[in-house]
Amino acid sequence: MNNFTFYAPTMFEFGDGAEKKAGELVRRFGGSKVLLVYGGGSVLRNGSYAAVTASLSEAGIPFAELSGIHANPRSGKVYEGIDLCRKEGIDFLLALGGGSVIDTAKAIGVGALYDGDFWDFFTGAAAVEQTLPVGVVLTISAAGSEGSDSCVITNENGNLKWGMKKSDLIRPKFAVLNPRFTCSLPSYQTASGITDMMAHICERYFTNTTDVEVTDRIAEGLLRTIIEAAPKVMENPDDYAARANIMWSGMLAHNSSCGVGREEDWASHQIEHELSALYDCAHGAGLAVIMPAWMEYVMPHDVVRFAQFAVRVWGCEMDFADPENTAREGIKRFCSFLHSIGMPITFEEIGAHAEDIDRMVAHRAEKPSGFPFGNFVKIYEADMAEILRLAAGL
Amino acid sequence: MNNFTFYAPTMFEFGDGAEKKAGELVRRFGGSKVLLVYGGGSVLRNGSYAAVTASLSEAGIPFAELSGIHANPRSGKVYEGIDLCRKEGIDFLLALGGGSVIDTAKAIGVGALYDGDFWDFFTGAAAVEQTLPVGVVLTISAAGSEGSDSCVITNENGNLKWGMKKSDLIRPKFAVLNPRFTCSLPSYQTASGITDMMAHICERYFTNTTDVEVTDRIAEGLLRTIIEAAPKVMENPDDYAARANIMWSGMLAHNSSCGVGREEDWASHQIEHELSALYDCAHGAGLAVIMPAWMEYVMPHDVVRFAQFAVRVWGCEMDFADPENTAREGIKRFCSFLHSIGMPITFEEIGAHAEDIDRMVAHRAEKPSGFPFGNFVKIYEADMAEILRLAAGL
Repeated sequence: MNNFTFYAPTMFEFGDGAEKKAGELVRRFGGSKVLLVYGGGSVLRNGSYAAVTASLSEAGIPFAELSGIHANPRSGKVYEGIDLCRKEGIDFLLALGGGSVIDTAKAIGVGALYDGDFWDFFTGAAAVEQTLPVGVVLTISAAGSEGSDSCVITNENGNLKWGMKKSDLIRPKFAVLNPRFTCSLPSYQTASGITDMMAHICERYFTNTTDVEVTDRIAEGLLRTIIEAAPKVMENPDDYAARANIMWSGMLAHNSSCGVGREEDWASHQIEHELSALYDCAHGAGLAVIMPAWMEYVMPHDVVRFAQFAVRVWGCEMDFADPENTAREGIKRFCSFLHSIGMPITFEEIGAHAEDIDRMVAHRAEKPSGFPFGNFVKIYEADMAEILRLAAGL
Repeated sequence: MNNFTFYAPTMFEFGDGAEKKAGELVRRFGGSKVLLVYGGGSVLRNGSYAAVTASLSEAGIPFAELSGIHANPRSGKVYEGIDLCRKEGIDFLLALGGGSVIDTAKAIGVGALYDGDFWDFFTGAAAVEQTLPVGVVLTISAAGSEGSDSCVITNENGNLKWGMKKSDLIRPKFAVLNPRFTCSLPSYQTASGITDMMAHICERYFTNTTDVEVTDRIAEGLLRTIIEAAPKVMENPDDYAARANIMWSGMLAHNSSCGVGREEDWASHQIEHELSALYDCAHGAGLAVIMPAWMEYVMPHDVVRFAQFAVRVWGCEMDFADPENTAREGIKRFCSFLHSIGMPITFEEIGAHAEDIDRMVAHRAEKPSGFPFGNFVKIYEADMAEILRLAAGL
C-alpha cells in the first residue's frame, strides 16, 4: 500500500426530501448570494428546481441563475458564469443537476477568483489556490463529481475535453442526494450513469500496487451493489431502494474511497474523452464501448487480477487450470451486463467511425499530458489506436 | 435505506513517516499552542513521541504535555487536561496513541470551552456546541476514534463508563496513521484492537433496516480484509502491508461509512462497558466475550441476516434446507477466529465472575439511557442477564 492523503470533507445530506435543506446548507457554509447553475427542463419537471429555489428563498438567500448546461460541458458556459459571479457579487455556487453542471460550477468557482483565463488550471499553467465554495443538489447518479476532487470541461476552442489538476479545494462543501429525483431519468441516461460509476471504480481497481486488500474489497462491494441494483431500476425506474443504493455507490466510486493507497489507471477515461469530444456521445456510453476493449487489450499484463475481478465481482467459478479463461469470462460478463442495461457496445452504436481513429490519437497527442497515459499499462499511440480498433470490432 | 447525514471531514495522512507532518497539520488547522496528550512508555519506545515533538518544534509550535492516560480512560485526566488548557492558553489538542488518548483529548476539548462540568455532555445535561480542535497521531489500530464522532470516558465517581452524545463537532481535524508504529504492539493488544474494529462493524451490520446493500457490502469487505490480515500480523508482527490494511479498515469501521442509512445496534458495546468498568479488562477482550453471546441470543430474530454474515463474511456454504445451521456456523467461525488470535472467549479468562452479573445489570440501570438498549433486538434487564450468563457459559 502506498502512502496517501485522504481528505473528503463534503457534507452529504441523503434521502427523500433532503433538497429542502439546500438554503440552510448554503447559509451554513457561508453563502449569502448564490449562482444557481443547472441544465434545462429535467430539473423543472422533476420538482428539484422548485424545491431548491423555495429553500433558498426561505433561507433569505438571493440568487442569480445560469442555465443551459449540457452533457460534456463547454467552456463558453464557464466564461459566462465567471462574468455573472463578478457582476452580481456571487459568493456561493449551487449546482443543480449532474456531473456536467457540477463540473461547470467547479470551473466557475476557481475561475471567478483568478485574474487570468480559467483554462490555465486545465493546461497546468496555474494551480488551484482558492475557489468560491460550491454546493450540489444532485439529480443524476453517475459522475461522482458531488464528492470528488476532479472536474472535466470541453474547451470549444479546439474541442479539447480536459480535466483540471485534481485538488481537494474543489470538493463541494455539501451535496444533497435525493434518489427520488433520479427515478424520472430516461433509462439510457440511467444506464450511462451506471456505466460511468463502474468505470470510476475499475479505473482504480486495476493497479500494479500490491497489498491493497481493503480498497479491493470496497471496490468489489460497490460493483456488486451496482450490478445487483441496476436490473431493478431498468425494470422499475421508481424502485427507490435500488436508486438509493446506486446513488450512494456512485458517490463512493469517485470520492477517493476506492483509490487511496494505490496507483490509479484512468486510461479508459482518457480514451473516452477523445470519443465524446468528437461525437458528443454520453460519457457513460463512450465508456461502455472503450472499457471492455481496454480490458481485453491489457488483460495479459495481470491475468490474476482479472481473474479476481471475474470471481469476486462477477461470481465466476475460478478455472484453476487456466486462470486466463476465468479472466476472459469476467470481461465477457461485464460486456453482457452493459448490453443488458441497454448500453452500446460497438463503435457504430455511438456514431463513431473507424476511420476517425488516427484523428483521435492525434488529438490526444495535442494534450500537454500527451503520451503515454494510464498506469496499469502505459498507453502509447499504437496502444490507443489498437484499443480503438478493438472497440470498433476490427 | 433511511435518510442520513454523512459528514466526516477529518484529513488523513496515512503511511510510513506520516507523523513528520504533525506540526504542519496543527498549523494548517489553526493551532498555535498544543496540549500533547499521551499514555506512557510505548510512544517513547516506538519513536512516535520523538518524531511528533520534533515536528512540533520544527513548525515552531510550543506545547504542554498530559501523560499517563490508561486504557478505559478516566475522568480525572480529563479534569487535569481542562485545567492545563486554561492555565497554559492551549488552542489545540494533539492526541498521540490510541482510543483512550483520543477520547481523553476529545473530552478535554469540549470541557475546556464549557463553564460547567464536562460530564454534563455525558449525562445529556449539555450538548456540544464547540470544542478546541483535536488532532491525532495514531499508534494503535483499534478504536476508530481517529475519525469518529464518539467518545467514551469512565467517571471514577461511580465507575460509570459512558459515551458522549455523538457529534460531528468532535471528529478530529486530522489524523496521522503510520502502520509502522503498530508493529511493536504486544500481540494481545493487537488482537484486542482487531476484535474492537470487528465489533464496530458488526454493531452496524446487524440492523432491521432493509435495502442497505451498499453498506452491507462495505461492512463485509472490511471484515474480510481484517480476517485475512489478522493471522498475518499475529504470525509476523512486522508485516507492514497487513498492518496497513488493518489500520485503514479500523478507521472505516467507525467513521460512519458502514452505518449510514441504517439503524445501528450497539447492544454489545453497552454490555461490554459494564464489564470493563468493573474489571478494567481490555475493551476488545471484553467484546470478544460478549459479542458471540449476544449473537447466539439474538440470532433467531433474523436467521437470514446471520446466514448472510456466515456466507459472505466467513465463507460458509449456504445450507438451503436449514439456514439456521448456516447462521450458527458463522457465529462458530467468529468464535474460532477470536480464539485463534488469542482472545479470551470465556468469562473466567478476563477475570469476570458469574456472581457479578446482577451487579452489572443494576449498574447499567443507573445510566440515564438505562433499559432497553440496542436496536436489532431491544435488550431489557432479563436479556442482558441472559447474554452475560451465555458469556459465562451458564
